[in-house]
Amino acid sequence: MVKQVVGYLQTNRENLLKRLHDYLAIPSVSTDSTYKKEVKNAAKFTADYLTEIGFNNVEQIDTAGHPLVYGEYNGAGENAPTVLFYGHYDVQPVDPIEEWDSDPFKAEIRNERIYARGSSDDKGQVFMNLAVFEAYMKTKGELPINVKVCIEGEEEIGSENLYEVLLNNKEKFAADFVVISDSGMVAKNQPTILYGLKGFTGIEITVKGPDQDLHSGMYGGAVRNPIMALSHILASMKDNDEVITIDGFYDNVEPLSAEERDLIAKIQGEDYKALTGVKETVSEKGYNEKEHTMARPTLEVNGIYGGYQGEGTKTIIPSSATAKITCRLVPGQDPDHIQQLLKNHVEKVTPSGVEVEVKLEKLSSKAYKVEPNHPLIQKAALCYEKAFNKETVFVRMGGSIPVVEWLDDIYHIPIILLGFGTPEDRLHSPNESFPLDSFDKGMETLVYYWDEVGNNR
Amino acid sequence: MVKQVVGYLQTNRENLLKRLHDYLAIPSVSTDSTYKKEVKNAAKFTADYLTEIGFNNVEQIDTAGHPLVYGEYNGAGENAPTVLFYGHYDVQPVDPIEEWDSDPFKAEIRNERIYARGSSDDKGQVFMNLAVFEAYMKTKGELPINVKVCIEGEEEIGSENLYEVLLNNKEKFAADFVVISDSGMVAKNQPTILYGLKGFTGIEITVKGPDQDLHSGMYGGAVRNPIMALSHILASMKDNDEVITIDGFYDNVEPLSAEERDLIAKIQGEDYKALTGVKETVSEKGYNEKEHTMARPTLEVNGIYGGYQGEGTKTIIPSSATAKITCRLVPGQDPDHIQQLLKNHVEKVTPSGVEVEVKLEKLSSKAYKVEPNHPLIQKAALCYEKAFNKETVFVRMGGSIPVVEWLDDIYHIPIILLGFGTPEDRLHSPNESFPLDSFDKGMETLVYYWDEVGNNR
Repeated sequence: MVKQVVGYLQTNRENLLKRLHDYLAIPSVSTDSTYKKEVKNAAKFTADYLTEIGFNNVEQIDTAGHPLVYGEYNGAGENAPTVLFYGHYDVQPVDPIEEWDSDPFKAEIRNERIYARGSSDDKGQVFMNLAVFEAYMKTKGELPINVKVCIEGEEEIGSENLYEVLLNNKEKFAADFVVISDSGMVAKNQPTILYGLKGFTGIEITVKGPDQDLHSGMYGGAVRNPIMALSHILASMKDNDEVITIDGFYDNVEPLSAEERDLIAKIQGEDYKALTGVKETVSEKGYNEKEHTMARPTLEVNGIYGGYQGEGTKTIIPSSATAKITCRLVPGQDPDHIQQLLKNHVEKVTPSGVEVEVKLEKLSSKAYKVEPNHPLIQKAALCYEKAFNKETVFVRMGGSIPVVEWLDDIYHIPIILLGFGTPEDRLHSPNESFPLDSFDKGMETLVYYWDEVGNNR
Repeated sequence: MVKQVVGYLQTNRENLLKRLHDYLAIPSVSTDSTYKKEVKNAAKFTADYLTEIGFNNVEQIDTAGHPLVYGEYNGAGENAPTVLFYGHYDVQPVDPIEEWDSDPFKAEIRNERIYARGSSDDKGQVFMNLAVFEAYMKTKGELPINVKVCIEGEEEIGSENLYEVLLNNKEKFAADFVVISDSGMVAKNQPTILYGLKGFTGIEITVKGPDQDLHSGMYGGAVRNPIMALSHILASMKDNDEVITIDGFYDNVEPLSAEERDLIAKIQGEDYKALTGVKETVSEKGYNEKEHTMARPTLEVNGIYGGYQGEGTKTIIPSSATAKITCRLVPGQDPDHIQQLLKNHVEKVTPSGVEVEVKLEKLSSKAYKVEPNHPLIQKAALCYEKAFNKETVFVRMGGSIPVVEWLDDIYHIPIILLGFGTPEDRLHSPNESFPLDSFDKGMETLVYYWDEVGNNR
């Protein structure tokens, strides 16, 4: 029975919130070197808490940047599964500070929300996980699962050293599955399982024409215009039905099953028009906006430049033009292969009279997806429902989380994204906050989950 | 007999070159206000010379900028034609001064060339015309034609006040035809008649999407990408055969006659590859590069920008993208109509999900062309041949000269472009120069021309 554990969290709510307040008070801004000492303090706070709970081999692993906190609990025995819990104790900068309604490092509760930098991303959610471990230990004297904890201090600066640390300590971090609480629900109090993330690749195209900008009167009619050539190249990559028209692009895309379309249909979609200001949304022919953003690959031109960009007119044929393109990929697509398809396509369609140079994006990554009916996912969904008293929705996300791709790449184990944030949390912005509802019910969900997947069953 | 007149120019060559030296020594840089007094001095020099020759009503017409020199000669009588001679006494700046091999305002003769700022553009050529008037007056005591002179001081800054002066003094400048010596020959000592210039128009296209740049992972698949939309719009305007694919664009284009194609074929074309560095030239399907640059309309994208243009990658869907487009037009095309066709086309092909804004270029102008077999042109060609002892070629130019369009617009009279510059003159650049051959034979050509078109015939 876990009533006791949940009871502990309720009874000790004030103390827990006070301790969270102390955690959030440490300005662990990883990108700003003037906060280096504070980042260290946040690592120490995290490590001390783990030790106090009863974790073993707690250590701060030094990196070229900020330390990574490790700790383990083996008390559940050899037959129990081992979970790797990942989170991060570093936070975004607070600028523009004048837009905050309260001190970003002095947590304040207003409108049933905790206002502070890191309250949602990710110190608040890391804390919830540790508090649940504490509650188990204080009431049951043990955890139902073995745990390894990996809490880094560089997530907000691209997890610069994480991949190397993981590779160098492959055995140390090995587990049966991963839990991450660094994401959100599609709406407040709406249990949400994020079961897929997109992969990523890109290229930069530079079309080169004449050695220098030319007088359009003297040379117009004899020389290919690099901007026009680039426009033809770009237009050949995606049609007005938002279908990507690059040979082989969709070849290995895992089809969207009827089952998954049903799952997606159940999600209350975002109001894209209100959020973006467009008068009309668009999506790939045959798929609606939710399906396309969550589960179909995309190709976007992120930037373009060439020739005269000042005010008024300058009658030149520019010497070159450049476009930056990135793709979000879905399961089945290999980023290196897709990158090569893009490059080949560009080279094939480049018209005569210009040269083309294709630079390959270095940070490619595969898409990640766990089957929504995987037992570990289904159990998480049930625990979520039990705590929030509402049916869980299953979503895939258009974005990418590097650590997920890396863990998948190294361990090939299920990664359960158990996040409790809400769309209103204002991550990375002034007045970041986290709902008390998520705090209470999120911890309750975690209590149920460890019980559900642990060795008691 | 004009032998006497030519003889005067030969006998007095040293004096004339000395006087030209003094003219070129005045740094009449119109764009730089620190030279304002010198610009005035050059106007005075010009006016004084006209007075000395025997011109009447010589005056400096004040403008909002630099003065325009006017003078007239009516001695040829009512039955003789009146020519309006246009030129300019202002010059380009000399920067970078360190690249000059001699003082730009101290004319030096080297390699049979006069090196000085303005030697070719346009003080040298203005001086030649005045010297020919002097030679007639000193030998014959009269000119065979009536002359009006319009020598401005703002050509190098876009003739800012000329159009207004012409409009306000329409009667004063009225003539039967115009002669301008402010252009060049296709090669040294190759008599060249420039009988056509292109017109001009343009638009600026801005495609607007979301209110702000969006995260490509969260919104890619729901929102139209403005850069991709703009690429489709641009690609729809010209195909890879360099054919402009805008409905009606070619509708009124005066066809290129077999006769004119022959004229163009006779011209030694520029080496486009060597001059521009492209490996392959291109031109409109059905026309070669010379025909296209000289006599077929063009459409060029002069600049484009949108989204992220820094180093590396930023995964956004940009909120907008902009392209600048200009066209060079040929006879038959109305710039306002073409501009409207461009606007309509853009609005028609803009895909859903974005808004488009089309700004119209204000400085539109019609193409100018005089029939190559017009008697005034044919006579010029013959005089050219007589002086240079070589067959004249007839060329059209891809560029535009505003004064030609304005004079055509106001007076609808033939405009004869009698220029003696060469491709090696380095106009606007360090070491501007003008060949002594052009100086001597150019003046000889003018002597013959006034005799040919004057009242002696």
